[in-house]
Amino acid sequence: MDLSPLQTERYRYQPKLPALLRKNPTEIKAVLGEPTSAYADADKLKEIFKNHFGAPVALFEAGPNPAAAAPRNIGVILSGGQAPGGHNVIAGLFDGLKAGNKENKLFGFLGGPSGIVDDKAVEITDDLMNAYRNTGGFDIIGSGRTKLETVEQFDKCIDVCKRRNISAVVIIGGDDSNTNAAVLAEYFAEKKTGISVIGCPKTIDGDLKNEYIETSFGFDTATKTYAELIGNIERDANSAKKYWHFIKLMGRSASHIALECALQTQPNFCIISEEVEKEQKTLMQVAKEIADIVITRAKAGKTFGVGLIPEGLIEFIPEMKKLIAELNDLMAQNEAEFSQLADFSAQTKWLKQHFSKDSAAAFDSLPEGIAKQLLLDRDPHGNVQVSLIETEKLLSEMVKKAIKARGEEIKFSALHHFFGYEGRCAFPSNFDADYCYSLGYNASVLIANGLSGYLSSIRNLAAPADQWIPGGIPLTMMMNMEQRHGMLKPVIRKALVELDSAPFREFAANRDKWAEETCYTYPGAIQYYGPSSVCDLTTRTLYFESRK
Amino acid sequence: MDLSPLQTERYRYQPKLPALLRKNPTEIKAVLGEPTSAYADADKLKEIFKNHFGAPVALFEAGPNPAAAAPRNIGVILSGGQAPGGHNVIAGLFDGLKAGNKENKLFGFLGGPSGIVDDKAVEITDDLMNAYRNTGGFDIIGSGRTKLETVEQFDKCIDVCKRRNISAVVIIGGDDSNTNAAVLAEYFAEKKTGISVIGCPKTIDGDLKNEYIETSFGFDTATKTYAELIGNIERDANSAKKYWHFIKLMGRSASHIALECALQTQPNFCIISEEVEKEQKTLMQVAKEIADIVITRAKAGKTFGVGLIPEGLIEFIPEMKKLIAELNDLMAQNEAEFSQLADFSAQTKWLKQHFSKDSAAAFDSLPEGIAKQLLLDRDPHGNVQVSLIETEKLLSEMVKKAIKARGEEIKFSALHHFFGYEGRCAFPSNFDADYCYSLGYNASVLIANGLSGYLSSIRNLAAPADQWIPGGIPLTMMMNMEQRHGMLKPVIRKALVELDSAPFREFAANRDKWAEETCYTYPGAIQYYGPSSVCDLTTRTLYFESRK
Repeated sequence: MDLSPLQTERYRYQPKLPALLRKNPTEIKAVLGEPTSAYADADKLKEIFKNHFGAPVALFEAGPNPAAAAPRNIGVILSGGQAPGGHNVIAGLFDGLKAGNKENKLFGFLGGPSGIVDDKAVEITDDLMNAYRNTGGFDIIGSGRTKLETVEQFDKCIDVCKRRNISAVVIIGGDDSNTNAAVLAEYFAEKKTGISVIGCPKTIDGDLKNEYIETSFGFDTATKTYAELIGNIERDANSAKKYWHFIKLMGRSASHIALECALQTQPNFCIISEEVEKEQKTLMQVAKEIADIVITRAKAGKTFGVGLIPEGLIEFIPEMKKLIAELNDLMAQNEAEFSQLADFSAQTKWLKQHFSKDSAAAFDSLPEGIAKQLLLDRDPHGNVQVSLIETEKLLSEMVKKAIKARGEEIKFSALHHFFGYEGRCAFPSNFDADYCYSLGYNASVLIANGLSGYLSSIRNLAAPADQWIPGGIPLTMMMNMEQRHGMLKPVIRKALVELDSAPFREFAANRDKWAEETCYTYPGAIQYYGPSSVCDLTTRTLYFESRK
Repeated sequence: MDLSPLQTERYRYQPKLPALLRKNPTEIKAVLGEPTSAYADADKLKEIFKNHFGAPVALFEAGPNPAAAAPRNIGVILSGGQAPGGHNVIAGLFDGLKAGNKENKLFGFLGGPSGIVDDKAVEITDDLMNAYRNTGGFDIIGSGRTKLETVEQFDKCIDVCKRRNISAVVIIGGDDSNTNAAVLAEYFAEKKTGISVIGCPKTIDGDLKNEYIETSFGFDTATKTYAELIGNIERDANSAKKYWHFIKLMGRSASHIALECALQTQPNFCIISEEVEKEQKTLMQVAKEIADIVITRAKAGKTFGVGLIPEGLIEFIPEMKKLIAELNDLMAQNEAEFSQLADFSAQTKWLKQHFSKDSAAAFDSLPEGIAKQLLLDRDPHGNVQVSLIETEKLLSEMVKKAIKARGEEIKFSALHHFFGYEGRCAFPSNFDADYCYSLGYNASVLIANGLSGYLSSIRNLAAPADQWIPGGIPLTMMMNMEQRHGMLKPVIRKALVELDSAPFREFAANRDKWAEETCYTYPGAIQYYGPSSVCDLTTRTLYFESRK
């Protein structure tokens, strides 16, 4: 690895820990609270998680825990999409484990959850760990999207753990991966393996959160990176005064990333999918509202602007959701017939004969390029690939139409951007570096206290790190039952943007002003050094939520 | 303006000046060297620039220059695309002017060169200036692309300057804008107006440089911003191990930005347009060379990678250059007939009957989406808009074809990015903040020494700022005669990437290794604070050039 000057310097950074975790693990003991329940469907979940359902919330206090010094091997898995700070979770886990007993070993399973099933692992040594401290990426051991769901997989996991004398597995992942962690933990308990499973809340999307998990790691760094770029583009728009920039932002279903970036940069518009769904808006309504802003600004001499669009928008618009579902069904059920159609116009004709009236109208309203994308870019199962739809271009074309329909003769030139991969592997901000290291160290303390089926939890994050509150939350406590691929399954509930939350209310209270005036704020690049006001800054989301 | 924490802190930054410029302008006097000539076509240029041709290079030394204290109004213009640091050029100019005599006034012409013609200006006050120090963007007075070329415009400039009692105009711009500055300066001299014109070398593209102008301002910050994003994407590619990222980079014709970013991030490939042209490569050859890299990596288990593509590539590929020229001619000469053609297939048929054999073949080799872009996205004059061609998608589609043609069954999934607007208005790096402030301050000293038709020059930039060498270069010295729109015109020569330059040789010596192995380097976000190794870093281009 050829090192950049920043990477060389970041190796020297010592992440901050909560005061309690600065003790040796042998001096930290768990304090268990009252039994817990679930987010919903407690009866059903109790049946599924016979061993772990109802486990108490764990906190820590200073006190002897000699078990932390017992010899112990641990395995760690990175699961799903990259998020800044993953390496620091492993570093915290490594340091916590070695602090208990320096003979302890940490094994990293390679390439995600498949690594444990296939027994592909590497021992994490001092040298290996030191090459990845405070860096972005998941490249130390790689990640993957294999789901641990079947009994065959679970039995293989048990074999591998026994062979390597591993007594605990830490899974670093999002809501789905932690759901799998809960099921795996339950299976390990049922089989009396003595192997514990601890999860760590990872995802830039910010949709794995609740009372005990104030934010998932990576959200801070990713949104700072996107906000840097949005701010730079805003400044460009406000200097050149001739373009509208339509910026799509990663974040899967939830609009947390878009909302956070809007709070940081104050753009002229930001669509929140959850609100569009609640108000049952059509795509044309969304476009018309943007067109209103474009027209108002143009009449005030401002023929430029910047708007944010969450990646998941399309699926929250009822008519589009229906259209995509019908398309998937029609193309699956009539694959042979459909594939015989000569070209796009023949396909369009055929589809119109088969669509419901609503979907025919929705399809008709789409610009040709987007309609083609819907028919062409399908996944291996033949389904429309929603994430590939260029919503930013779709919306700007519809805005152009809406302006024309209003009979307005105004200048509207749009440029398009999509930010996602740019932020998932940035060097973690000081916040994420500290938070991740604490999550990992904390996981080692949960293990040393004999706990399993827990998510590593660090709270009070808006305060300085020494005041953070470490602990563990039973994974079952965050679960409910949901339909997945036609089956009712226990899952960790995905946290979407709540329209009565403090961050959304802050946005809603200001957006009309931001639309009409030019209130851009320019966050600039993430700073790892310098005045505390710039290098220890947390997200606006965390700030407003902590003021509740 | 709602200020971000970084913006608030950046206001406190005091840009560094060369040692000599830390004196009061009344203590700095110009030392003129021998008469100069031109880059080429001296005889012709001597005729055009009767007053300014042959002016000596100016350096400074400590010594009395009471003229610096004389009352004086100056006008300043931002011309062309944004580049980080423009506000600091104005700040340096402002501070230099006020240091000479605090009654002096600086007027900012609004919206670019049209501001002086239309007499739209604002006086730059302390409060206004302080709100923009060390920030990105050109929003303090706005920019524009109007060219100052006609006698009518020049006469209006004289009127406006007389009315406002302005005795010097500073034009902050690229090669074209500084060419205009030279012509304007000559006109002012010919008319004996006593008004001087000084240029400042701006452009993120890095193509305004020569022996005396080591780099244009903004190049440092823009490339650092792009390299941050490229590095983050490289780390993502190396973690997920499933995508090839094709990244197009702004930079107009020249490939300086792509080359600098390649030196900073060590990607698997980087196309240098100048090399493609020199070796007379076809588009398919370029694609085949990338395909070779993709195949070699895939066979070694690495089905991922990152490649950089300069914005101007298409115009350097002889067959494409010819195709575009033929297309422009054909569509212009047969506009009525062409516009009657029903659809893309009718257009294709018609074009094939009219193209030369080579262009018909080149057109045929293009993916349909790109061929359509060529026909649809035309500028107001009916010309193909080369900058809108999605070269990154074009190349990845042709690479896919080339892999298939080789009969290789390898996984190749491409993702596409275009970075440009993200970097033009970033907060200037410490280097650009210092360099720009020095350029502006230096311009005020050139004016105070009665010079006109000069470009502000700060040399020895790879050394610490106190060792920088301030001075002025006659604009005519950098000029030659070139065909522009069918006429032979005096222009500042655009500096393309030289294939025998130290930065290119460094790249060429390493690229095979970077292609096959994974040697990614992750620069991370621009740091304005912290260890000198991270916050005072200059470009690799400047580093290698200074070692010559």
